[in-house]
Amino acid sequence: MQDGCEVEVKVRVPSVAEAEEMVRRAGGSFVREGLQEDIYLRHPCRDLKARDEALRLRREGGGCTITFKGRREGGAAKMREEVEVQTDGFDEALAIFERLGFAPALTIAKRRREFRLGAATVVVDSVEGLGSFIEVEVKSGGGAGSFDAAKKELFSITDRLGIRREMLLTDSYLELLASRSSDSSAER
Amino acid sequence: MQDGCEVEVKVRVPSVAEAEEMVRRAGGSFVREGLQEDIYLRHPCRDLKARDEALRLRREGGGCTITFKGRREGGAAKMREEVEVQTDGFDEALAIFERLGFAPALTIAKRRREFRLGAATVVVDSVEGLGSFIEVEVKSGGGAGSFDAAKKELFSITDRLGIRREMLLTDSYLELLASRSSDSSAER
Repeated sequence: MQDGCEVEVKVRVPSVAEAEEMVRRAGGSFVREGLQEDIYLRHPCRDLKARDEALRLRREGGGCTITFKGRREGGAAKMREEVEVQTDGFDEALAIFERLGFAPALTIAKRRREFRLGAATVVVDSVEGLGSFIEVEVKSGGGAGSFDAAKKELFSITDRLGIRREMLLTDSYLELLASRSSDSSAER
Repeated sequence: MQDGCEVEVKVRVPSVAEAEEMVRRAGGSFVREGLQEDIYLRHPCRDLKARDEALRLRREGGGCTITFKGRREGGAAKMREEVEVQTDGFDEALAIFERLGFAPALTIAKRRREFRLGAATVVVDSVEGLGSFIEVEVKSGGGAGSFDAAKKELFSITDRLGIRREMLLTDSYLELLASRSSDSSAER
């Protein structure tokens, strides 16, 4: 369980192997690896996308995490509230939300390898249909001072990784996938 | 976690001590005891009460159970779908639903002592502001044949407990509390 804020950025990388090389060179230590299936749900009467909020069910191993993501704030790094609980059943958690009128909007499948680097969690993701990414995340208490400190820490980590500021993305995978589908429909 | 149907009835009893005496005489064996705090939530855009559905968060020990209860069917015994997951945080689970526009409608606090009697779970509840009750519950696969079998089993248990059919209630504590509040406002 968790109720707090996080500051995060991501960057597109050519391959998982290159990304891992960057993380290891910067001194990151491997924590764990797993397949994650994220289902984002549509609210029965609220436009979560317009509110810049999201409700996500994550299947990983046998368990399920329910996460509410609040509206993003900040610029080059994004800060958003995340409230999260672990549950003992993915199908049952999904069924409860479906009975309440929520519906799956989009599914994102990825293989995630997680590393620890200073105060940050650094993950190397291979996202189905999207490519490979490094994501850097630092927890923040939520206040303005705490946000600034977390952002400073975050950028010191991206510098250590050799990532240029102009490469940083604050879009979520949800948005990257959505914009990709609209690109490809424009190509037709 | 659980996704299935249950058939249940309850009966009002003069005291917890008398109720326990009835259960023990019938051969019930004690399973566990606990304090439960149930918060029923209001949906942001659905009248769950009118649909005969309910969303409940139960705090018990350190954990939290999220339960969706479907519409009741059946007569003297009620059958309803229950979909349930265990989570690791009550405050976080409540916060997620609140962020999504759900709001606490009513809280029910009770001390529950649970017994096993044949295929049934028999509980003796002392409900704050309502009194003492015996509740008898039998799991059902959900089909018509399974419902009839579960109902038959249920009534054999209530007979063993010496409970007369006309005393049986299918109202939920939520409804009993709500009707009690409207009674007392009518008295004013």
